[in-house]
Amino acid sequence: MTADPAWFAESDSLHRDAYVTGTFVFETAGDGPEAVAHLCREQSTAQWKRPGREEDFRPKHGAKCVSLRELVKGRWEARIAYPHVNFGAKIPNLLTTLLGEGTFFSPEINRIRLTDLDFPDAYAARFPGPAFGIEGVRNELGVRGRPLFFGVVKPNVGLAPAEFAALAEAAWTGGLDACKDDEMLADAPWSPLAERARLCGAARNRAEAATGERKMYVANVTDEPDRIAALGAEAKAGGANALMLNALPIGLSCCRILRPLGLPILSHFDMVAAVSRAPGHGADSAVLTLLQRLAGFDIILFPGLGARMKTTEDEVRANIRACVRPLGGLRPALPVPGGSSRPEDLPGLTTLVGSTDFGMVPGRAVFEHPSGPAAGAASFRAAFPPVAS
Amino acid sequence: MTADPAWFAESDSLHRDAYVTGTFVFETAGDGPEAVAHLCREQSTAQWKRPGREEDFRPKHGAKCVSLRELVKGRWEARIAYPHVNFGAKIPNLLTTLLGEGTFFSPEINRIRLTDLDFPDAYAARFPGPAFGIEGVRNELGVRGRPLFFGVVKPNVGLAPAEFAALAEAAWTGGLDACKDDEMLADAPWSPLAERARLCGAARNRAEAATGERKMYVANVTDEPDRIAALGAEAKAGGANALMLNALPIGLSCCRILRPLGLPILSHFDMVAAVSRAPGHGADSAVLTLLQRLAGFDIILFPGLGARMKTTEDEVRANIRACVRPLGGLRPALPVPGGSSRPEDLPGLTTLVGSTDFGMVPGRAVFEHPSGPAAGAASFRAAFPPVAS
Repeated sequence: MTADPAWFAESDSLHRDAYVTGTFVFETAGDGPEAVAHLCREQSTAQWKRPGREEDFRPKHGAKCVSLRELVKGRWEARIAYPHVNFGAKIPNLLTTLLGEGTFFSPEINRIRLTDLDFPDAYAARFPGPAFGIEGVRNELGVRGRPLFFGVVKPNVGLAPAEFAALAEAAWTGGLDACKDDEMLADAPWSPLAERARLCGAARNRAEAATGERKMYVANVTDEPDRIAALGAEAKAGGANALMLNALPIGLSCCRILRPLGLPILSHFDMVAAVSRAPGHGADSAVLTLLQRLAGFDIILFPGLGARMKTTEDEVRANIRACVRPLGGLRPALPVPGGSSRPEDLPGLTTLVGSTDFGMVPGRAVFEHPSGPAAGAASFRAAFPPVAS
Repeated sequence: MTADPAWFAESDSLHRDAYVTGTFVFETAGDGPEAVAHLCREQSTAQWKRPGREEDFRPKHGAKCVSLRELVKGRWEARIAYPHVNFGAKIPNLLTTLLGEGTFFSPEINRIRLTDLDFPDAYAARFPGPAFGIEGVRNELGVRGRPLFFGVVKPNVGLAPAEFAALAEAAWTGGLDACKDDEMLADAPWSPLAERARLCGAARNRAEAATGERKMYVANVTDEPDRIAALGAEAKAGGANALMLNALPIGLSCCRILRPLGLPILSHFDMVAAVSRAPGHGADSAVLTLLQRLAGFDIILFPGLGARMKTTEDEVRANIRACVRPLGGLRPALPVPGGSSRPEDLPGLTTLVGSTDFGMVPGRAVFEHPSGPAAGAASFRAAFPPVAS
């Protein structure tokens, strides 16, 4: 049996600007070409004509396999071109094509993982992308030539707003550029975000006056999607000058709801591992990072190095690339590898990134520092040669 | 070395109404109690005091392991109680605790899966839950005593609105209760939802007049989160009398944004498999179904039976239970196992569900029927003894 040629194409024969290309690695006990033909069908126009009609929706709407090779016996890598007229420049609809029912319930395929994603510039340019990006965040902080230091205020859960603001003030004064809420901390009865933002706003003003530097408070507005516009406005009114979302738990592109507030937006990688960490299954974390950049996040956290993170250098590099690679003229997002949180990680990270355009997110290295958070923060600044902005 | 007792509790010693309980199965090469103590810490208050202070946030905010047993060597099942004051009655914040960084980057744990979730009634009651539920959807359709038949109009991608509406009309007239958009079809330039809804609304009126039955058009409003309120209003104005979201791609609880429109809301299970189908990793699909019910979906699709779905009867049963089990007074959602789509599946499904309170979502069995969609639809109605409503 031969796979239906309607689901295959020479890459050169397709109008380049009309297709998004996904790379999948899959396993099959059957025939590779047959399996990929099923996959293309399930991911596009499953039933491609009405009975009794002379028609065929596949030329315009069908996904097409543009390359296929067997990596080892039974394990194949396929590149599949999707006509983006099917889903538009919309993250939820793109995700439905790439990681929806069709992908995981395709005949003959036992295991499948999305490993890469490529767009024509004209398609990428239809997404908002970061409103600030690396340049914009640096402009907000007035910092050039060194990495940006974001501290996660700890204890992460349980502090009253005044206690939280006092720790943030000490860490800003000691040298952190930004203090952020932990991903577990949002708007809580024991720490209402409006109050926390107001106290942090005042503390930030004092820290700026004391240091002569600009500082940032990143408020986690993760909440129900119908509440985040109001919550973000409250946080901004209080004194937050950046906002944060746990992207996947709320919805990867919900950051669009916050965009009218005009503040940089940071994403945390909760739930990314649920999709990315089973070998051979799901999707590479870098693909989800790339989609977060398209959606408009300015600062993107992803799994970084260090014993607890069990993440390879290759995965970290792929995430960094997703933040900064050319992408239809969209701004680069600031890459922030999570979990690499000690001053001594700085040289290695700088080498890995290949520039100083990255952020660090220390937690306990600042807030459990034996001499206090100001000293903890200072240890990061001391680890990097200061450069005039 | 003994695990820190602060992360363990007797279930009876905890205030029942204050905790949400998750069941996890995990693998460790080390000590089970040590590993679960790390997990509780990472999932709640990682740093539980400020240095130099006499304080401890764990009694109030710490997660607590309430049972732990070794299933086979190195594989453990733990029940963990989370004080919900940490995250509130909010799906994104709950998901962050259950499936966030802490869960997948916990020391000593190599593989982990969330297998169950339990709430006190008082906590569940703080969520909206289905506005219609099974009873409300039946009231809309005026159908009692038999399953509800939702057809997915096919070809799923490529039909012009008028072609789509003509197929829907035939299928309604033949006997379907509802016609829905495929998960791959939303608002597209070649089938704008406003126009499709308008034509389907008119077709629905004709089908209702022809049959004397109530009919439903379920419009897929999956789009960017900042657009769905307007898109849903457009669809409703056109004639859609139910709405659909691809829940995980847009954000599991984004259905809240549609609630003010006052229509039943259906969810499709795209991306659920990305989280649920790697053995031992991620989360059971039934947990995600339960969360969709809390968030307010009235009709919930999940992986069903049939060769293509590779889903066990146990998984289907667990999803059905998540839709209908008692839950703080919230309405039951209509369970719809996807993929079981032939008339001959009806008796088996009725036995599996244990009642007629379920939906079917045939696609090709209706729209590729050799005698046309009306005959395809009629074959489902003929397979079930009609009961007066």
